[in-house]
Amino acid sequence: MNIINLAPFQTRVHDRVEDNLDQLEEWLQHRLKPGTDLVLLPEIFVCPYDSKNFPIYAEKRGGPTWQRLKGMARRHGIWLCAGSVPEEENGRIYNTSYVFDRQGNEAARHRKVHLFNVDIEGGIRFMESETLTPGDEITVFETEFGTIGLMICFDIRLQEQAKIMGDLGARLILVPGAFNMTTGPAHWEISFRTRALDNQLFMAGCSPARDLSSSYHSWAHSIVTGPFGNIIDELDEKEGVLNVSLDLDECDAIRRQLPILSSRRPELYAKYTK
Amino acid sequence: MNIINLAPFQTRVHDRVEDNLDQLEEWLQHRLKPGTDLVLLPEIFVCPYDSKNFPIYAEKRGGPTWQRLKGMARRHGIWLCAGSVPEEENGRIYNTSYVFDRQGNEAARHRKVHLFNVDIEGGIRFMESETLTPGDEITVFETEFGTIGLMICFDIRLQEQAKIMGDLGARLILVPGAFNMTTGPAHWEISFRTRALDNQLFMAGCSPARDLSSSYHSWAHSIVTGPFGNIIDELDEKEGVLNVSLDLDECDAIRRQLPILSSRRPELYAKYTK
Repeated sequence: MNIINLAPFQTRVHDRVEDNLDQLEEWLQHRLKPGTDLVLLPEIFVCPYDSKNFPIYAEKRGGPTWQRLKGMARRHGIWLCAGSVPEEENGRIYNTSYVFDRQGNEAARHRKVHLFNVDIEGGIRFMESETLTPGDEITVFETEFGTIGLMICFDIRLQEQAKIMGDLGARLILVPGAFNMTTGPAHWEISFRTRALDNQLFMAGCSPARDLSSSYHSWAHSIVTGPFGNIIDELDEKEGVLNVSLDLDECDAIRRQLPILSSRRPELYAKYTK
Repeated sequence: MNIINLAPFQTRVHDRVEDNLDQLEEWLQHRLKPGTDLVLLPEIFVCPYDSKNFPIYAEKRGGPTWQRLKGMARRHGIWLCAGSVPEEENGRIYNTSYVFDRQGNEAARHRKVHLFNVDIEGGIRFMESETLTPGDEITVFETEFGTIGLMICFDIRLQEQAKIMGDLGARLILVPGAFNMTTGPAHWEISFRTRALDNQLFMAGCSPARDLSSSYHSWAHSIVTGPFGNIIDELDEKEGVLNVSLDLDECDAIRRQLPILSSRRPELYAKYTK
């Protein structure tokens, strides 16, 4: 048994950074279930999700938002995977997720590797690359529960990234994300179920709550899926906390019973791969 | 537009090879929709699916079953992806799919690469490797509709194989398969939806109809899925023909609108891959 108590916080995003951070403090004080090990926040939870906002709201690593998040992790003695925020460095803007450990140390920083550039007929158009630069690292970090992977939203679309994380030892992958009203109903659940099933590990996604007064309508539905491709629990579109207890050792049992990973034949694949 | 009219034949499998081939002739005469380009048959459609049957029913390439299938393709002027049959060569037994073109030439032969060895608590136990040898090739073939991929059942479990086929140019992958009453309801649909979505192509699966008097209970539910991860059509558990018209050019439209494939960063993944 290797139990992690995980809590995606599906918050509603307000215009002012401070209001979002105040709200987070308030939720941590009043809505954090005792025994929670790790709190997961939504993608871009400090400002409305909009390409033109990223340069306006961006802060440097170590800036005021980073400092407040660090303090919250330490005060509550939790792992805090702080969704994502616009990060500025050398004039470039990234969609960045910071993870703080129980002492408030930065344990990981992931910059979204695959930007969201979509133009669906009769559906959504959104171009992150108008203002953002992609990261250049695949991110896993070590905890007392073992290795955990960290990706952001569109990263989940690329089968390669979750596979690499699994190969690096991750048995849980955290995904701050914000699918929309076109891709959400079509692909949110299947993306989390599939990456869990194919890589025989747990996936946890956290979205902003839906806000029809903002320009971007989030599908929400924060979700946790397991290594048999099953949905463990899922929120609806409203604000809320999802509390789940995951036994990461369950991955080993599933891997024995349904030997997907051990059936791999890398030497064969290599014959067809440039 | 690049339309292929595809018809999975979800047949019930009888004990005698000849009865199964006679049934197939009968379906081709009376149930083949005019204009059908390609008929897809189930995994192991010539004998009951059971490890101990494979050596008993195995024939060599070019043997009587192969000859009859070749003749049927030529007489009906169709592409025939003849599900799979136990094949014997040099004392080894393979789970093999033959594809014949409209002239009855063998256009492809795929030997199942990932054998089905499953032992699920409270569910199914089945060990193909007790009697079968795995193939050593990933199989695609050329048609007037472009490149088509061919895999068998458990092959779909491994994300690598469909990805390689997509990279080799396949915009349709054929999958004779026979999921069971444990893995079928859990994973049949999501496997076809996911491989289609992740690789932005069409997937078509053909299973035997369910027969509760046999030792192996097939989930059936022959299915066709599209590049947006959508189910195009699906049968239930009974005998039947699924007739679908697929415009393979739709893959290109989806790839433009939702740029998953073009977002890939192989140079980044290579940093983490041995």
